[in-house]
Amino acid sequence: MRFGFMMYPGYEELDLIGPWELATMWKTYAGGPDCVTVAQTRDEIRCAKGLLTRAGATYAEVGPLDYLLIPGGFASFDELKNPVSVEFIREQAKGAKAVLSVCTGTFLLHAAGLLKGRKAATNWKTIARLRELGVEVVEERYVGDGPVWSSAGVAAGMDMLLAFIAHEAGPEAAWTTQYQAEYIPEAKAYGPLSAWENAPRYARDQLD
Amino acid sequence: MRFGFMMYPGYEELDLIGPWELATMWKTYAGGPDCVTVAQTRDEIRCAKGLLTRAGATYAEVGPLDYLLIPGGFASFDELKNPVSVEFIREQAKGAKAVLSVCTGTFLLHAAGLLKGRKAATNWKTIARLRELGVEVVEERYVGDGPVWSSAGVAAGMDMLLAFIAHEAGPEAAWTTQYQAEYIPEAKAYGPLSAWENAPRYARDQLD
Repeated sequence: MRFGFMMYPGYEELDLIGPWELATMWKTYAGGPDCVTVAQTRDEIRCAKGLLTRAGATYAEVGPLDYLLIPGGFASFDELKNPVSVEFIREQAKGAKAVLSVCTGTFLLHAAGLLKGRKAATNWKTIARLRELGVEVVEERYVGDGPVWSSAGVAAGMDMLLAFIAHEAGPEAAWTTQYQAEYIPEAKAYGPLSAWENAPRYARDQLD
Repeated sequence: MRFGFMMYPGYEELDLIGPWELATMWKTYAGGPDCVTVAQTRDEIRCAKGLLTRAGATYAEVGPLDYLLIPGGFASFDELKNPVSVEFIREQAKGAKAVLSVCTGTFLLHAAGLLKGRKAATNWKTIARLRELGVEVVEERYVGDGPVWSSAGVAAGMDMLLAFIAHEAGPEAAWTTQYQAEYIPEAKAYGPLSAWENAPRYARDQLD
């Protein structure tokens, strides 16, 4: 089993690397799939906040993946105009067990035609924009609808990954991954919900 | 103000990139410091789980930093034998407002002489080993003791960074960072505490 993590210029760092850390812990300690980063080329890729990364394989050479995760970031709105990336997602989705997006990676799922008739989550700033495209957007931290999973922004991808591991491999695998990564977050909010304009429903439910 | 994030071969991905994401959100949305990755050379650095990254500056060229964060990973035990890295930490610490470590990055703080008379946190697997070196190890998710902050393993670095931002810039800055990154984690444990041998006290307190 192989889990691909798609990179493109300007992707948001934690969108990809949060889930990557959990998936590679799943591999190391609980029998999870091999993990590989994949991009259109092997050129260095500068992330949204300036981190310098490079993919381990190109779209052309990676071969069929069982799972594929697509990060977001403002640059996702440029990347959805790249037919090579959109076609890569569409083709991989045909054979994959699941395709996952984090944050505005959902807009790439939409561009690849994967959200027809499906629920999706996205970054809170882009909920209205995704609804305008006709997508049924849920204001949850993440949602799995058949083989398509999506999460809210940035850090939400880690909560999605644990739920995804539990779904694919059982709660013991998710728990082992969770404590190996010490992902036992503080349940702490540093400010009031009233200072977060347009907070999504999951946050209002959780913080109120 | 400048915040350096130290890379070395085999560093654990999320140890560095979790705090990096929060610090760069602090910069973008709440007036935080400029963030820069720094390593001994500009060669590509392979992380613990295989992610390929490269630092934006070398130790020699980065200049004085206000804050410096040091990630962990099994490779930290090799890196503490690298006198160039240890000296870099020691020299930067003289002028910095704060030095922070995540996971076994604490062992690099220790090698640089920064833990004398100070409390520190580390990865749960290495608590006994750090105590054997004479360090007062607390089983907290993170601890700040004067200018030296340290956290438990991997994902704990993100909780530390938010607390650090609140300490340096006030809770409003931490809150803005938190919701911009949608770091409002689910408070969910996928398994029982009994299945986590040697769980640290913070986890026992939080999950029991």
